Amino acid sequence: METTLAEAFKQTSYQLSGHSPRNLEVLKQALDQANGETISDMYGKGEIIEDFQNKMAGFLGKEAAVFFPSGTMAQQIALRIWADEKQVKRVAYHPLSHLEIHEEDGLKELHYIDTVLLADEDRVIGLDDIKAMDKDIACLLLELPQREIGGQLPTFETLEAISVYCRKQNIRLHLDGARLLETLPYYKKSASDICALFDSVYISMYKGLGGVAGAILAGETSFTEASKVWKRRHGGDIISLYPYILSADYYFEKRRGKMGQYYQDAVQLAAFFNQCPATMTIPEVPVSNMFHVHVAKRKEEIESLLAAIYQETELGLTSYLKETGDESCYFEVSVGDSFQTIPKPVLERTFKLFGKGINELTVHE
Amino acid sequence: METTLAEAFKQTSYQLSGHSPRNLEVLKQALDQANGETISDMYGKGEIIEDFQNKMAGFLGKEAAVFFPSGTMAQQIALRIWADEKQVKRVAYHPLSHLEIHEEDGLKELHYIDTVLLADEDRVIGLDDIKAMDKDIACLLLELPQREIGGQLPTFETLEAISVYCRKQNIRLHLDGARLLETLPYYKKSASDICALFDSVYISMYKGLGGVAGAILAGETSFTEASKVWKRRHGGDIISLYPYILSADYYFEKRRGKMGQYYQDAVQLAAFFNQCPATMTIPEVPVSNMFHVHVAKRKEEIESLLAAIYQETELGLTSYLKETGDESCYFEVSVGDSFQTIPKPVLERTFKLFGKGINELTVHE
Repeated sequence: METTLAEAFKQTSYQLSGHSPRNLEVLKQALDQANGETISDMYGKGEIIEDFQNKMAGFLGKEAAVFFPSGTMAQQIALRIWADEKQVKRVAYHPLSHLEIHEEDGLKELHYIDTVLLADEDRVIGLDDIKAMDKDIACLLLELPQREIGGQLPTFETLEAISVYCRKQNIRLHLDGARLLETLPYYKKSASDICALFDSVYISMYKGLGGVAGAILAGETSFTEASKVWKRRHGGDIISLYPYILSADYYFEKRRGKMGQYYQDAVQLAAFFNQCPATMTIPEVPVSNMFHVHVAKRKEEIESLLAAIYQETELGLTSYLKETGDESCYFEVSVGDSFQTIPKPVLERTFKLFGKGINELTVHE
Repeated sequence: METTLAEAFKQTSYQLSGHSPRNLEVLKQALDQANGETISDMYGKGEIIEDFQNKMAGFLGKEAAVFFPSGTMAQQIALRIWADEKQVKRVAYHPLSHLEIHEEDGLKELHYIDTVLLADEDRVIGLDDIKAMDKDIACLLLELPQREIGGQLPTFETLEAISVYCRKQNIRLHLDGARLLETLPYYKKSASDICALFDSVYISMYKGLGGVAGAILAGETSFTEASKVWKRRHGGDIISLYPYILSADYYFEKRRGKMGQYYQDAVQLAAFFNQCPATMTIPEVPVSNMFHVHVAKRKEEIESLLAAIYQETELGLTSYLKETGDESCYFEVSVGDSFQTIPKPVLERTFKLFGKGINELTVHE
């Protein structure tokens, strides 16, 4: 069944999420702009990497920045540095943090760092959660937006209060900003406004920005210099990172100004879903370019319905569905350039068929 | 002074070592061959990565292979897997192993694995060294060729004896084959002939092969599957590795057949150096494409001499010199495509000037 939905999705002409297919063109386009005689970075040195690091440090309002091949590596290292600084091998984060569920326990297996899980799985961390926790932790990690619950955000005032509290308690505050740029239109803040509240910051170059891969870790110079030593230990001090850096820079410039559009599109799109029976988005009104769509129907039924709709309208809503416990399922929507390419009649027809299909499922129950 | 030599080297038209400048053209050429609509690998899955892994497994005569962003990551992981298997957190290798001197102690700081250093710094590990060591180690790592001593090699018979001995003693044998292909013409063996002696094998895609970056780790499927879990923990399970994979494949095909030529060129070139006064190569007769050139003169004197020669002949012998304790210095030569582009008169004139210059230094002493 899953294959059928994924297969039907592959045949569609339009897609709700993302920018364009993740194919070699993504790199080719970025490289076409670059002079072939430009010399590679070499183990973290050279103009290509240093210039981009300086640029991102400026953008994030931090003293220095380091380019990493992945956020997994960058964030484990950030937490290790803060754990070593305080000589406390314990950090706190959300139960659905990327580190807790997607990294094969690298933080524990490689760095022997314990974790304290804050808040419930279905809401973001608040100041009360932090006040209630055992204070003997080196660092608190906040993910903005909280991806696994549809991209929810605390208010900026909550962030400020958490920041003040952590500084008083001598707890380092780290930002998992994989999708930081995507939150700026909602917060109506600059990246450096947000980052000023944190001791260390990670952003991804391939989520909303759509680069090939790579991450930036930023903070004070003493922190970033320590991170370079750990980057080498992790095997991330790759002789040439330029394929990632060039594409990161190219798509950063191409899309940094489009985050407001993605956010507005997400709000509009979520409203479409919320008008369909048995369907709700989380958050109900998105606060970034992303949200989750929950349908209170059996996964197999919705798979069949979607596959049929894709064939008729050529618009793919999702390539997969995830089952939730109680006869329901969900998928993630992450708005990028693709959304604007969908003809309005195609979008309207798709939602009409989706609503009608769910109604028919309900009648037959 | 160092800047002067490096600057003079940059201005040369010909270089003794390497293939061509490490610039963006290296990637552009590899990408030009590829279809832009080819879909990226995704976190270790997809045709691009799986096809290349299968190809390299076949080439190395192993059950399976995994593409890594770096050898540093691949080798630490190999040793961790063998240490966990035996529940012994100790491995053995040469005192000048890459892991011991170039990785900021990642093996110790990340994996808490102790090391036993075998043999003297200036020679390769022999069977006697292994017989004499404490047997309570999980794995022995052999580097072929031993780069930091000019690329020396044990005989194939010694390798066979070490392999038999380690199997009897229940010690895993890992091959640091960063430059494995470069040894095959000397051994007159296939890659799989050599790899059959080892439990696990790493090869680099950017040394003699000249790719952009990346490494292959190969072994039995149970080993490579475990390595994928550790790759994710290290932050090496990058969403898209294709820039490295495509270039690895392109330059593997372009240069795998040229290793015999590089080896012969290195032998010829070492003879030129050995004819110069106060100059000797290690090994005296190379056994791969590489060797070290030792000059029994002060580093500053040789820097000035070389910079002057570069200006006159436009042939760069090295961009740096390393001081050794006793008023002498050395540099590494690693033969690739560049050597064949040097006009014979330029080569001869350069060595004539080099020999003459050293003689004059001696007269003035």
